[in-house]
Amino acid sequence: MMTKRQQITKKQTEQLSLDLIEAQYALKNTRGTDQARGLLILVGGIEFAGKSEAIKQLREWVDPRHLYVKADIPNQITSKKLFWQPYVPFIPAHGQMMLLFGNWYTDLLASSLYGEEQISEQDFAEYIEQMHHFEQYLQANDIDVIKIWFDLSLATTQKRLERLDLAKALQRVPNFSWAKFPVSNWRNKKLYNDIQSIRKRFTSDWIIIDGEDEKLRNYQFAQEILAALKKPPQLKPQKIAYQAQDIHPQLNAPASTYLEKKAYKQQLKKLEKQLAEAMRYDPRNIVLLFEGMDAAGKGGAIKRIIKYLDPREYQIHSISAPERHERQRPYLWRFWDKLRDDSAINIFDRSWYGRVLVERVEHLISDQDWQRAYHEINRFEHNLSQHSAIVIKFWLSISKDEQLKRFENRLNTPQKYFKITDEDWRNREKWDQYLQAASDMLHYTSTEHAPWHVIASNDKYTARIQILQTILERLNAEGECPK
Amino acid sequence: MMTKRQQITKKQTEQLSLDLIEAQYALKNTRGTDQARGLLILVGGIEFAGKSEAIKQLREWVDPRHLYVKADIPNQITSKKLFWQPYVPFIPAHGQMMLLFGNWYTDLLASSLYGEEQISEQDFAEYIEQMHHFEQYLQANDIDVIKIWFDLSLATTQKRLERLDLAKALQRVPNFSWAKFPVSNWRNKKLYNDIQSIRKRFTSDWIIIDGEDEKLRNYQFAQEILAALKKPPQLKPQKIAYQAQDIHPQLNAPASTYLEKKAYKQQLKKLEKQLAEAMRYDPRNIVLLFEGMDAAGKGGAIKRIIKYLDPREYQIHSISAPERHERQRPYLWRFWDKLRDDSAINIFDRSWYGRVLVERVEHLISDQDWQRAYHEINRFEHNLSQHSAIVIKFWLSISKDEQLKRFENRLNTPQKYFKITDEDWRNREKWDQYLQAASDMLHYTSTEHAPWHVIASNDKYTARIQILQTILERLNAEGECPK
Repeated sequence: MMTKRQQITKKQTEQLSLDLIEAQYALKNTRGTDQARGLLILVGGIEFAGKSEAIKQLREWVDPRHLYVKADIPNQITSKKLFWQPYVPFIPAHGQMMLLFGNWYTDLLASSLYGEEQISEQDFAEYIEQMHHFEQYLQANDIDVIKIWFDLSLATTQKRLERLDLAKALQRVPNFSWAKFPVSNWRNKKLYNDIQSIRKRFTSDWIIIDGEDEKLRNYQFAQEILAALKKPPQLKPQKIAYQAQDIHPQLNAPASTYLEKKAYKQQLKKLEKQLAEAMRYDPRNIVLLFEGMDAAGKGGAIKRIIKYLDPREYQIHSISAPERHERQRPYLWRFWDKLRDDSAINIFDRSWYGRVLVERVEHLISDQDWQRAYHEINRFEHNLSQHSAIVIKFWLSISKDEQLKRFENRLNTPQKYFKITDEDWRNREKWDQYLQAASDMLHYTSTEHAPWHVIASNDKYTARIQILQTILERLNAEGECPK
Repeated sequence: MMTKRQQITKKQTEQLSLDLIEAQYALKNTRGTDQARGLLILVGGIEFAGKSEAIKQLREWVDPRHLYVKADIPNQITSKKLFWQPYVPFIPAHGQMMLLFGNWYTDLLASSLYGEEQISEQDFAEYIEQMHHFEQYLQANDIDVIKIWFDLSLATTQKRLERLDLAKALQRVPNFSWAKFPVSNWRNKKLYNDIQSIRKRFTSDWIIIDGEDEKLRNYQFAQEILAALKKPPQLKPQKIAYQAQDIHPQLNAPASTYLEKKAYKQQLKKLEKQLAEAMRYDPRNIVLLFEGMDAAGKGGAIKRIIKYLDPREYQIHSISAPERHERQRPYLWRFWDKLRDDSAINIFDRSWYGRVLVERVEHLISDQDWQRAYHEINRFEHNLSQHSAIVIKFWLSISKDEQLKRFENRLNTPQKYFKITDEDWRNREKWDQYLQAASDMLHYTSTEHAPWHVIASNDKYTARIQILQTILERLNAEGECPK
């Protein structure tokens, strides 16, 4: 630890700069390798402690072309919004270093102080827990996260405040309003103490930098960044106690109920209308996802769900292999990106479960990665359902014979011919491995908030009716006991 | 043309569906080929003319996995905002088909009717012109654009309005407020006439579909999409009358003034502070861009510009080769994406001029492409400067000897060693071709709104002072005569 009395020599800062640049390039060059990783730096702190100055100094010491800085005034944290939504575009890709000056913690701090919604002690603690999980996920997926708090005594804060023409300094801040951001109150001892007591509830795992001495502060900040850049990649979390599950009985032999066309048509129309109404007026965001073997009927079911909805009311996401820029980010990132807009109804034709299905079966990732994914996905869905979303998951189950019949039918139907590819036939050869993966997935990711619904789908009519009914039931059940 | 009396047979719709799917896959398969193209469909229309229904029907006929639909309530068009900003993520990539239900025209229509700012006749005409230029740019860059207006008589509009429980139907619309979106007024003949007269000012190149008969309407809509999908790629616009220019004198032999270190330091500090103040309080968005040979001093100049700014006040964009997902879109798209956030100061270390510099010299594109780019870039910058942005462009000019000296210096300076790569040496071998390209660029893209500033940069001190002074002058000059 450096004491205040120590002087920093020019030679020291030159060496620091050189080390930083070297470490930046080393990070950059991990991109595309097995060692690929990124660095995310969260910065917060007391006003006038010198965050901006330290960031500016850092930018001069590093190669600024490889340090991305995203700085904003706080976003409002509310129970309706996911804290990570504003930050999705700024999660670093492999090889990147991103500094978030303003981040989910400072959003929470500002919202606690000035927000429109009261944040209870319990909610606060829950937000922090979610944020920790989010960061753990990033860490486990090769994005290191460090958090740095700039602190300052009340006496020095007030001294620095006096030196400043606040009205002028803040004029340029986007969307600035005094009401939102009552800077004059910083003279207030109570506010200072409030900030300190709120931030102490989340900064126990932060690096704290004393902003008293400007040079030391800047030097220490840059050294912390250097240490983070040079830190060897962390060991991945231990894999979970995974045990292969027995094949789920409904997967092995889907129930074979059969519905007459006439009865189907009658029930269908009624249900389609009922469901559209229920979804339209549900105040929550609705996340529907469909998994199942090729030709299990996912697309057909989705068609019926949206029958009486307006295209403005929903988004359909058809998930296939990630693109290159998506592969350079944590696996869940591309789904965060799709859910960023907070639109009311999101329907996934295949989903993040690709991680524990195709990616597992095709050996695209290590055993450790897909086993850890059960946890990661559960947390992600928990996070969604804590924020006014309801997550409804379907596995459409068909027999191997039925799949063959449908493949052949597709080959013989001009409109469907396009839907069948060599890949479908290759997947079919791994039928048993997919059944194992699906059975494990059902076991490990059927949670209280987001249970799986296994739908026997050898008969399309039966399956569709059951899917519509299930969604209706889930919406009604959860509607009765709002959180 | 189909008349209302004609019936559409089941066989016809089946064939249409098949043709659509085939055409979709043909489009998708152009991705990554020389024939790569995308399709953008803009949809607007009178309320109750059946836009939603036609889109829903289309989704049933096509393979919905390859039709993206983006639907929103209107964005406010204001003089401070670029009309394309909300739509950047929804410009289709090669191989994609995107339907914008709600788009820049409907934004303009809604803003004319209900907007907070008055839109004058002249502004309206200018917006339309900008929109046309934007679409021409897309077309020339392999994104076909079709625009479809659903029309309906007042009598039928009112009849359909009566059938509807409006309050309920609109409850789900995001951010909905009656004040913004006074639906009850649709009964009003004057409003209907207003909408018609406004939309007629932009729909002359739209396909108009009569919404009277639901089946015919849906069928015709889908047929127009099919026709667009099947249309052979358009001929690229003729290349401009390009003539190679003489090498710009200041590029061949940059003026060699020299500034003493002491004088430099004094002037610099004063200018840095003045400039920070000027930029901070300028109400416009500021776009600064730097081009020049490798080692011309772009990074060093940028450092001095931001010296007294807060990191929250600016963004620096270091532009290198586009990533793959960016290459699958029109060239300017990645710059639209960077300017999407409407942040106050954007600084580009290299820029969209890569098109007529490195891409031209390295033969990455055809002569026709880079020659057309002069126009495209001029329009883009004109568009920026029409919307409260000031665009300030620098070419930093050094001699070939000076570059060699700097390269050698970089090799011998540990902190700078990283900045020099084999590519820099390869570029140097093409010195004369770059000079030619730069001279042409200066000639063809120095416009009234966005003139080039050529800065003799053999002496770094002189260059930096001149750059700071130039920005100050531009800010002041344009500040005096606000548009």
